[in-house]
Amino acid sequence: MIHISKETLAAAGKIKRLNIVNSISGIKPANLIGTISGKGQTNLAVFSSVFHLGSNPALLGMIVRPSGEVPRHTYENILETGYFTINHVPVSHVREAHHTSAKFDRSVSEFDACGFTPVWKEEFAAPYVGESPLQIGLRFEEEIPIRANGTILIISGIEHIYLPEDVLNENGYINLEVAGSAGISGLNTYYQLEKLASFAYARPGETPLEEL
Amino acid sequence: MIHISKETLAAAGKIKRLNIVNSISGIKPANLIGTISGKGQTNLAVFSSVFHLGSNPALLGMIVRPSGEVPRHTYENILETGYFTINHVPVSHVREAHHTSAKFDRSVSEFDACGFTPVWKEEFAAPYVGESPLQIGLRFEEEIPIRANGTILIISGIEHIYLPEDVLNENGYINLEVAGSAGISGLNTYYQLEKLASFAYARPGETPLEEL
Repeated sequence: MIHISKETLAAAGKIKRLNIVNSISGIKPANLIGTISGKGQTNLAVFSSVFHLGSNPALLGMIVRPSGEVPRHTYENILETGYFTINHVPVSHVREAHHTSAKFDRSVSEFDACGFTPVWKEEFAAPYVGESPLQIGLRFEEEIPIRANGTILIISGIEHIYLPEDVLNENGYINLEVAGSAGISGLNTYYQLEKLASFAYARPGETPLEEL
Repeated sequence: MIHISKETLAAAGKIKRLNIVNSISGIKPANLIGTISGKGQTNLAVFSSVFHLGSNPALLGMIVRPSGEVPRHTYENILETGYFTINHVPVSHVREAHHTSAKFDRSVSEFDACGFTPVWKEEFAAPYVGESPLQIGLRFEEEIPIRANGTILIISGIEHIYLPEDVLNENGYINLEVAGSAGISGLNTYYQLEKLASFAYARPGETPLEEL
C-alpha cells in the first residue's frame, strides 16, 4: 500500500490534492439540483455533496461554497426562492450531467444547454428534471456556516418525492440499480451501481441473513 | 411515477419512512469507523454518513447521533481519544460490515466479533481495518450541533491515507471499482461500483470528452 501523509498531501499540487481528497470518502451520490431565480431564470447543476440528515423530520443536507469571486447560481437561487429540486442523475445521462458543471452565464439555462427537460409539478416553485428516475422537491430550512473552511451546510426539508413504482418495495427500500441512479467519485468520475444484497437488522450473536 | 408527499411520508409507519428517507439522497459510501476507548477497548462500526467537506485543509464530515438512551461507542471514543480511522468497506465483506451495526456490548470488539483485523500503523492512536482497500487516519477537529434534528456534524482532518498503488493514478484519481469499495442505500442494502467514465473539466460550449 502507498502511504500519503498529511504533509505529502499538503505538498502535492492543488489539482492532485483536490482529486485525491474529493475521492477518499468513497462513492458520492450524483444529483442534479434544479432551481429558478427570482427573475424566472432556471438553473441546473450537478452536485455530489447531498447527504441524508434525518428521517423525522425528513431532512437532507448539502455542502455549498459561498458566492465570492465565482458566482454560485444554485445557492443564490435557493436563498431567493426558498425551494429547489434534487434529481438523481440517470446512468444514461452522466455526460450531460457533468456538462452542467461548466461556468455558464447566469442568463443561460443548463436545462437547455445540456439537454435536460424542466418539469413543473403540483405548483411547486422549482423545476424537476424530466430525465431523472428519482425527483425530490425541497424547502430550504436553514444554513449553517462551517468556520473550518468557509463552506456552508444547507439543511432542507423534503416536500415531495417522485419515483417509478418498480423502484420502491413494500418496506420502503429503494433499488438504486433498478432506478439507474449514478454515483460520483472525485470531481469527474461516474459509476453505475450493482446491488449486492440487503441484510436483515443485525444482532450480536447472528451473522446477518440476506433479505429479498 | 408514484408521488409521495410530505404528508404521505409523515403518515407512513416509522420503519417505512426510515427506509425511504435513508435511500432517497442516492448512493452513500460504505465505511467502517475504527476507534479505541480511553480504557483500550477497540470498536468498529459501519457508517454511511461520511462526506467530503473540503480539500485544503483536507477535511471530512460525518453525521452522528448524540449518546442518549442508546450508547454511541464510536462517538464517545472519538471524543475520548481525538483520533479514529475511516476504512472503505470492501465488496467482499459487506455482510461482516453490516454485522458491526448490531448492538454489541461496549466490552466486545466488533473487530473480533465480526471478523476484521485491527492494524496499527505509524503510532497512530486508532486501529485501521486490515481488510479495507482504502484506510484513512483522522484527527477530530470540531463538532457542530444541528438543532433541526439533534444530530451532530463531526469535522475531522485527514492525517494519513493508505491505498493500493493500482487504485491511484498520476492525476490523483482514485478508481473505486478497482479498489472494490462498496456503497450503501438506505440502512441495509449494499452495492458494488462499476466505473462508467471520467470526463474532462467541463466548458460551456463543448460536450465533455472522456478522459482515460
